[in-house]
Amino acid sequence: MRWLTENDIEHIAVGAAVLGTGGGGDPFIGKMMALGAIDKHGPVKVINIDELKDDDFVLPVSGMGAPSVLVEKIPSFDQLVNPLKAYEEAIGKKVTVIMPIEVGGVNSLIPVAVAAMTGLPILDGDAMGRAFPEAQMVSFHLDGLKPELVTMADEQGNHVTIRPVNGLWSEKLSRQVTVAMGGSTIVSDYGVDGKQAKKSVIPNTLTLAQKIGELLEKRTEAVHPIEKMLQLLKGRLLFKGKAQLIKRGIQGGFTRGEAHFTGMDDDEHSECILYFQNEHLIAKRDGRPIALTPDLIAVLDEETGMPITTEGLRYGARVIIVAFPAHEKWRTPIGIETAGPRYFKYDVDYVPLEQLHEEELS
Amino acid sequence: MRWLTENDIEHIAVGAAVLGTGGGGDPFIGKMMALGAIDKHGPVKVINIDELKDDDFVLPVSGMGAPSVLVEKIPSFDQLVNPLKAYEEAIGKKVTVIMPIEVGGVNSLIPVAVAAMTGLPILDGDAMGRAFPEAQMVSFHLDGLKPELVTMADEQGNHVTIRPVNGLWSEKLSRQVTVAMGGSTIVSDYGVDGKQAKKSVIPNTLTLAQKIGELLEKRTEAVHPIEKMLQLLKGRLLFKGKAQLIKRGIQGGFTRGEAHFTGMDDDEHSECILYFQNEHLIAKRDGRPIALTPDLIAVLDEETGMPITTEGLRYGARVIIVAFPAHEKWRTPIGIETAGPRYFKYDVDYVPLEQLHEEELS
Repeated sequence: MRWLTENDIEHIAVGAAVLGTGGGGDPFIGKMMALGAIDKHGPVKVINIDELKDDDFVLPVSGMGAPSVLVEKIPSFDQLVNPLKAYEEAIGKKVTVIMPIEVGGVNSLIPVAVAAMTGLPILDGDAMGRAFPEAQMVSFHLDGLKPELVTMADEQGNHVTIRPVNGLWSEKLSRQVTVAMGGSTIVSDYGVDGKQAKKSVIPNTLTLAQKIGELLEKRTEAVHPIEKMLQLLKGRLLFKGKAQLIKRGIQGGFTRGEAHFTGMDDDEHSECILYFQNEHLIAKRDGRPIALTPDLIAVLDEETGMPITTEGLRYGARVIIVAFPAHEKWRTPIGIETAGPRYFKYDVDYVPLEQLHEEELS
Repeated sequence: MRWLTENDIEHIAVGAAVLGTGGGGDPFIGKMMALGAIDKHGPVKVINIDELKDDDFVLPVSGMGAPSVLVEKIPSFDQLVNPLKAYEEAIGKKVTVIMPIEVGGVNSLIPVAVAAMTGLPILDGDAMGRAFPEAQMVSFHLDGLKPELVTMADEQGNHVTIRPVNGLWSEKLSRQVTVAMGGSTIVSDYGVDGKQAKKSVIPNTLTLAQKIGELLEKRTEAVHPIEKMLQLLKGRLLFKGKAQLIKRGIQGGFTRGEAHFTGMDDDEHSECILYFQNEHLIAKRDGRPIALTPDLIAVLDEETGMPITTEGLRYGARVIIVAFPAHEKWRTPIGIETAGPRYFKYDVDYVPLEQLHEEELS
């Protein structure tokens, strides 16, 4: 157990932008919300999964929709807390612990704001181990759980409760409600007891985001922060280059597109293309896959190592593209079926990051 | 109190196609559902509003979405009854009377099917006195009531409960959920006690639909059925002509468009245009309005007097276009604001049907 400091939250916001560069939204909005809520309602206690009691009731809270919309209409107190209240009412049980559904982007810190507002502790863990663009891409789904109940609220005061037949319908219905509600909502789904949470939650991910933030901010001359990050996350440097053509389009409630980079230094004469649906999903170098979802692909500023979000990427940016292995839960057949390249309609089979680069090691 | 016979249902289906030629859907699907349910579960009792007890709980049940989709996926027993069950659970009260939200199109008979399935009586009355395309176009809204609760179900087993801030948000959110659910859903909204129903319901409209059906089917040589219908509904014959250009497009979940007619007989050398959003909303003759929503416009087969739905209208059809005055509730300022021409973005003020044709009488 520990209390989150203002510094911790600053670092989580930075680290969260590495773990979720798109769909999760701009984590700095999350930082504003979390700091504002703590300032008004008091500090937030973080607990880890070992501290959960079997009969705890753990509820994820997250934002759904387009990050660009969230900036325009910052959620109100009522909107942030209403899905939780509706959830409690529907199941006739009190929530005892809040958790992030994804530690990546704005959704790392929205639940911290809700924890402050309700006085509940926040769990150090999430259901993705990163950010993914769709609602059913969670460890609960991999463990065979259905989202029995989804509660949603907008800033107008509208509430919607969905009882979907499965995770895919949950995604489809909640996505459309989000569109109808103006493009961004607050959502609670996959409420579980402490016993189930201990099984399904990917642990220590808030702390992981915080560590990434710390090493990016607390710079030393000796080792470049990107080097330290690769060590921490067992990742690989994929490509060093300059952003060229960036194609983006809104399709089915997502930002889809691709970003092209021409190589620099060791990568001169090579080209890298990233394909994204909110999050970067596929990286190819000269036509050959070099990283594939569910492994995580991130774009970092060459100079500072700071993450560049999908929305923030601009022509001419000098970047380092890195990749990190997904949590082992994502590398199972159900994990690959749920968030692998073919789910996103890319015509390529998943190969783990390490295996893609085996020849480089040998 | 009376029991609905198979013949009554046949007649209601025909009359309902006069009172709702578009958004309400093909009433013959409703007939199939009602007859099927009665065959399986037993007969349906009709009560009128004087028979309501103050503490009755009256719940409308209706279909939402595109009629063409409904034909493809006839609702199952579960889908028809689930919104009612979800409503009862959410408010902790038992429904005692079913009512149609609109007597027009398929929604006249879907609630009859639900009444058969649940063994509850159906109210002889509705909340429109005709069909209208949007969810908030109901007498409850005119009386200042909010749809506190909207329950929806699809044929997959998905359930959605909406607590909207007002009628317009109810329409917006439930329409999007309907789109996400594949284009057609079963909905319950505006549940009220018997006391409120007595105030707000437009009475005797199931019987009215039945009477229209009877006079169209039980033909005598003496008086043309259209003539009898105009007497019954205090309507006017607007135009006799042949269908020419028909423009239709799907826009925001509705079928919008216009239908052009060239005149025959007394109307030779004239042109009539109908503008529709699911329902016919405006009729113009040579550019001059001759009938305006919320007054009802219907297109009838010249020969038989049988109604032609918006979807069923074809090039070359020889038709008689008629109009009937809306119920007085719709001719109030709030009624005109809710369902008058300007709500539908037509640049013309509402003028009652009788007034538009005053000069013809004088």
